[in-house]
Amino acid sequence: MKVNDIDMDAVILGNGEYPTHSMPETMLIMAPYVVCCDGSADEHIRRGFTPDAIIGDGDSLSPDNKERFRTIFHQIDDQETNDQTKAVHFLLDQGKKTIILVGATGKREDHTLGNISLLIDYMKAGAQVTMLTDHGMFIPASGRNCFKSYPGQQISIFNFNATGLRADGLVYPLSDFSNWWQGTLNEATGTEFTIHAEGDYLVYLNY
Amino acid sequence: MKVNDIDMDAVILGNGEYPTHSMPETMLIMAPYVVCCDGSADEHIRRGFTPDAIIGDGDSLSPDNKERFRTIFHQIDDQETNDQTKAVHFLLDQGKKTIILVGATGKREDHTLGNISLLIDYMKAGAQVTMLTDHGMFIPASGRNCFKSYPGQQISIFNFNATGLRADGLVYPLSDFSNWWQGTLNEATGTEFTIHAEGDYLVYLNY
Repeated sequence: MKVNDIDMDAVILGNGEYPTHSMPETMLIMAPYVVCCDGSADEHIRRGFTPDAIIGDGDSLSPDNKERFRTIFHQIDDQETNDQTKAVHFLLDQGKKTIILVGATGKREDHTLGNISLLIDYMKAGAQVTMLTDHGMFIPASGRNCFKSYPGQQISIFNFNATGLRADGLVYPLSDFSNWWQGTLNEATGTEFTIHAEGDYLVYLNY
Repeated sequence: MKVNDIDMDAVILGNGEYPTHSMPETMLIMAPYVVCCDGSADEHIRRGFTPDAIIGDGDSLSPDNKERFRTIFHQIDDQETNDQTKAVHFLLDQGKKTIILVGATGKREDHTLGNISLLIDYMKAGAQVTMLTDHGMFIPASGRNCFKSYPGQQISIFNFNATGLRADGLVYPLSDFSNWWQGTLNEATGTEFTIHAEGDYLVYLNY
């Protein structure tokens, strides 16, 4: 199995833009368990869905839904972390480790950056996470990993603390990038590629 | 003058979403000189504007506009850099150093990450750059800097290589953050704040 063969215990719907691409949208509809981050529940409910849980400090959830869904609303006021992280730990506490995150990007860019970088923390906490946006997927990884691809697929690698970064199956060579943009705009040559490294990195695969 | 008093020699319109917020939109309309990154010119021209220059490898600009605007289209095929960076260097070569970037985010998140992180490189190359998105502004900085704000304004700090990070005028203390999300979700207490550091960091100010 490749790292990006998608399997899931649960989907987290974030506070960014509600998904419009079929990939995140389909996962959200097919999910065996859906956790909404605070106010994201309003739009999900408005579309006729019922989340399994709503997590957050309750500051963006409508008063109506807070009352109507009070049995599944888990208020967590911790200011040291964000709603996405609260949702991941809520799932890990139930043994749900394979988690897909959707709706995590597309609004404030500082939230987008924060939500993406937190994937590395979730991996370290024992979760197997994939973020599906309207454009592509982000997968946190450590060490040597093999990924499914298609020839010509646009790939970007973001280095967190990895050394010895190199790849088989990508057009341009990797190095121990120190700036985010340096690993962008790469391309898969075939139906899989392998990344070798010591340490953590994030892989973006454009759909 | 504070770092975020906006002044400009030129505006660069990127290949992300065309701006919808009044801040980037106004700057684009008022700009003394507009450079479009490749295909971004198509939408700008469709709205009745004429850019001063179009920069890029020409792979996303429509054939019609490539022909019609051939006198201002500067084709640069360098694969080692992106269109945004080509546009910045095109302006620096003309002595235009105070540059506002709009339309740089909102599509592929790997491009968003790349475009944002490149602001640090442009600062090092001698440009004074501000990125205006539909949600807020990004400003690259180094050392001690003072920023205008309003009480309660949402602020995020992204550490690139800075040490000794601390602030006056923000609600939560800074530290030498190692992960992107750690400096997010801060807040200004008054009409200005100062960041002290050795090295480079990026400040996001929500509108």
